[in-house]
Amino acid sequence: MVQPYELFYWPHIQGRGEFVRLALEEAGAEYADVARGPGGVDALAAALKEGPTPSFAPPFLRADGMTIGQTAAILMYLGERHGLAPQDTAGRLWTHQLQLTLADLVNEAHDTHHPIGIALYYEDQREQARRRAGEFTAARIPRFLDYFARVLGGQDYLLGPQRTYADLSLFQVLEGLAYAFPRASARALARHPNLSALRRRVAERPRIAAYLQSPRRLAFNEEDIFRHYPELDG
Amino acid sequence: MVQPYELFYWPHIQGRGEFVRLALEEAGAEYADVARGPGGVDALAAALKEGPTPSFAPPFLRADGMTIGQTAAILMYLGERHGLAPQDTAGRLWTHQLQLTLADLVNEAHDTHHPIGIALYYEDQREQARRRAGEFTAARIPRFLDYFARVLGGQDYLLGPQRTYADLSLFQVLEGLAYAFPRASARALARHPNLSALRRRVAERPRIAAYLQSPRRLAFNEEDIFRHYPELDG
Repeated sequence: MVQPYELFYWPHIQGRGEFVRLALEEAGAEYADVARGPGGVDALAAALKEGPTPSFAPPFLRADGMTIGQTAAILMYLGERHGLAPQDTAGRLWTHQLQLTLADLVNEAHDTHHPIGIALYYEDQREQARRRAGEFTAARIPRFLDYFARVLGGQDYLLGPQRTYADLSLFQVLEGLAYAFPRASARALARHPNLSALRRRVAERPRIAAYLQSPRRLAFNEEDIFRHYPELDG
Repeated sequence: MVQPYELFYWPHIQGRGEFVRLALEEAGAEYADVARGPGGVDALAAALKEGPTPSFAPPFLRADGMTIGQTAAILMYLGERHGLAPQDTAGRLWTHQLQLTLADLVNEAHDTHHPIGIALYYEDQREQARRRAGEFTAARIPRFLDYFARVLGGQDYLLGPQRTYADLSLFQVLEGLAYAFPRASARALARHPNLSALRRRVAERPRIAAYLQSPRRLAFNEEDIFRHYPELDG
């Protein structure tokens, strides 16, 4: 019997774990979202230090006797195992490259509300956040979206007719940007109908659509990476 | 005939390209560092937009008919091709996970001098940089180094007796931290002689030692990711 996956991530946010959840859902894989179960965050904290391949931070995935950390590495594994990426070297690397570029965008989105320090509250760095978000909304969002729109072109998905984990992640980033920066993101997307089309195309995939309607999909909130602070939405 | 590699990266800094250079050097691979050649940065800028797998930013590598972007993806490719990572799935993923965690540390090191915006000068965000670097030197450097020291344990290299690209990258990060934050980094390393031993072990590998003595190795400087601003070294 195939052991179901165990995903370890914070139970109250989408965060970086959401990229893994979307891949597991699209694969139709059976998985436990451990910290949302009876063990709670204690189970997460305990597992973080266990075993020969400990993670620096969540998310990490127990699969097939391994414990795999780092979002992009987890997705690479799921991509190979569930047909969420091409099998050939060039396609596999290109999918991963796109994922890592999305991860850069996610890091920058996070930094908008925590420019001075991750250990400090947003309220203690609000003015600096306003300046940092100004650059992000005016220059960085357009630059990243221009890039992905150019890669996508007239195709259905980033690599062509077949969806990969990078498409699921791009969908999630577009959802997050629309939540956190509705004005800046609408402005950037207005120039790229192909990105809006991809966003809908992913949302309408049967397993993703079912997931988004389910209680398994957490709501965006202001503890998460993508936070809606209207004063940051330039 | 095997085509030599072409590395595209900024010509005046180590930056993220240095992780790729170290892997190419350790592999004994023939490569052109294109923007340091006659074409200069114009060749880099032109190549950035070419081909079916464009990069969002340097570094990227032309290899075997492919163009591969994102430091960690390039290293994964070189690791597979040159024995700089295990071949089995678990070992390959673990090496990559460690690399991605080092990339997180590098991002945080960069943010210390650019907390408010990458498009602004350091001089225009000096006070915010001081606060951000305070957290980095007091909390983040120790936490990351504790993690890597625990993974390394009493082994010669992070995965055991065989060096991988993650060891080369850890070496580079330790060099960078020692340059940028000599006091904070000495304090954290004092608790982890095994990390200092790994740093020496990598530096003394014949090909790495030759590279570090060669004109190909650029000096650290204040245009780079690791910058020595004494006021940030808490």
